[in-house]
Amino acid sequence: MADINLRKARQIIRFALAKGRELELKPLSVVVLDAGGHVIAFEREDGASPGRFAIAHGKAYGAIMLGMSGTAQMARAEQQAYFMAAANGVFGGQVVPVPGGILVRDGKGTVIGAVGVTGDTSDNDLIAGAAGVEGVSGLTADG
Amino acid sequence: MADINLRKARQIIRFALAKGRELELKPLSVVVLDAGGHVIAFEREDGASPGRFAIAHGKAYGAIMLGMSGTAQMARAEQQAYFMAAANGVFGGQVVPVPGGILVRDGKGTVIGAVGVTGDTSDNDLIAGAAGVEGVSGLTADG
Amino acid sequence: MADINLRKARQIIRFALAKGRELELKPLSVVVLDAGGHVIAFEREDGASPGRFAIAHGKAYGAIMLGMSGTAQMARAEQQAYFMAAANGVFGGQVVPVPGGILVRDGKGTVIGAVGVTGDTSDNDLIAGAAGVEGVSGLTADG
Amino acid sequence: MADINLRKARQIIRFALAKGRELELKPLSVVVLDAGGHVIAFEREDGASPGRFAIAHGKAYGAIMLGMSGTAQMARAEQQAYFMAAANGVFGGQVVPVPGGILVRDGKGTVIGAVGVTGDTSDNDLIAGAAGVEGVSGLTADG
Repeated sequence: MADINLRKARQIIRFALAKGRELELKPLSVVVLDAGGHVIAFEREDGASPGRFAIAHGKAYGAIMLGMSGTAQMARAEQQAYFMAAANGVFGGQVVPVPGGILVRDGKGTVIGAVGVTGDTSDNDLIAGAAGVEGVSGLTADG
Repeated sequence: MADINLRKARQIIRFALAKGRELELKPLSVVVLDAGGHVIAFEREDGASPGRFAIAHGKAYGAIMLGMSGTAQMARAEQQAYFMAAANGVFGGQVVPVPGGILVRDGKGTVIGAVGVTGDTSDNDLIAGAAGVEGVSGLTADG
Repeated sequence: MADINLRKARQIIRFALAKGRELELKPLSVVVLDAGGHVIAFEREDGASPGRFAIAHGKAYGAIMLGMSGTAQMARAEQQAYFMAAANGVFGGQVVPVPGGILVRDGKGTVIGAVGVTGDTSDNDLIAGAAGVEGVSGLTADG
Repeated sequence: MADINLRKARQIIRFALAKGRELELKPLSVVVLDAGGHVIAFEREDGASPGRFAIAHGKAYGAIMLGMSGTAQMARAEQQAYFMAAANGVFGGQVVPVPGGILVRDGKGTVIGAVGVTGDTSDNDLIAGAAGVEGVSGLTADG
């Protein structure tokens, strides 16, 4: 398993932000975490609200810790709200279970990191983040 | 009352993981706590997401602290979500109220510890964990 | 007062990392915060230990919250350790009072953000971070 | 980089506990973390005090997050107590900066995990933990 390196993390962020501008989304914030849930890189576009790091981080961190995309977490939260509330408890309140939390998989399907995007609707956040991941050769977005 | 010793804790984990492999479940993580809710042993199978200790621990810890199996906690959460939310609050966010949290009872029915299993569906987690407990002579699983 | 925008934050990080490579420092991590102490951008070089975001953040966050550079905080900690311990308490443990936490001032001397650098010795972290800030036209490093 | 798998984690624990028995140390507790600081396996010997998971975890977790062995952290704490206090703050109080926190390196010197041992004196904890790591082919202990 190879973690995402800084060069690839920068590419993911650039491609995600470019997608946001192409679709004329609100200012986005994008974080890239390694396979252990630790921050490699983050950027917040001008005009975004100040708390965006925590939201982006919570989307990506929850995906890594649970091994579930934000979309899958949201489905679980809709069915069983107390489970996601409890998961949030055990992870120190650092889980944001909505689309925009994206597992990054390598060519073998192994999770090598996660991306968290926030700023527009959750669905648009996911579109931008997935474009960021898929823009990098060899990486697949599981959002 | 005799606590579970390390030898029995290892057996519980081995039997639970063996059951998981027999049923071809996803990679499992299993924790064994003593009657005070303190960790005796834990193992996370290769391929499980990194946050599995916290989930397994939350299932077992909630069972010990409340004296209720994960199944019983889930029933309470379905009826009265705010009670389980409050329980989680007083126990520092360390309660995960779903199946896979199993009270371990001795021959007299006394709770001598708890097991927490996570990785597959909650129901399958319970099956594996109960097999682990029941595989040890003299122990009964209350899941 | 103008906050640091994303373009300038990227420049600060690039110049700081370039200085680190020029001086052959260990892998560095650099965070840029706005005047409110909120993350604009962060990068962790390959080979750095996973917890570097928290250290870099703590250096920059403490600088913003207290209006004191890391060097000034360290001097205070040497004289009055319990004051810095107390400061850490009121700021939720998020203050790291050593060199490498740098206030960013504009042409009028107003604090418009902070930079946190970690990875090598604290003194070298400061050298790299100050080079990052001073590399951007109109910004002054108060480290 | 290959993380430590469960098989190797079990070996590390077995060898560390065997060393403890050979030296007639007090009951030991041993945790093995992956390169992201997440628990793979843990065992607490009979007779150890109940809080040993947290101590063992804190030794290993601090080593991973800071990229420094417990011995190196202790030296830093002796010189600059407020730095280690601050590091503890940013890592949620989860850092125990004394010997017995051991970085595990592969043949290339890359950190692939950490071991935390507690129960006897810190120096003896380190001896047992290093024996555990060095007992596994291809692994080197940096304690």
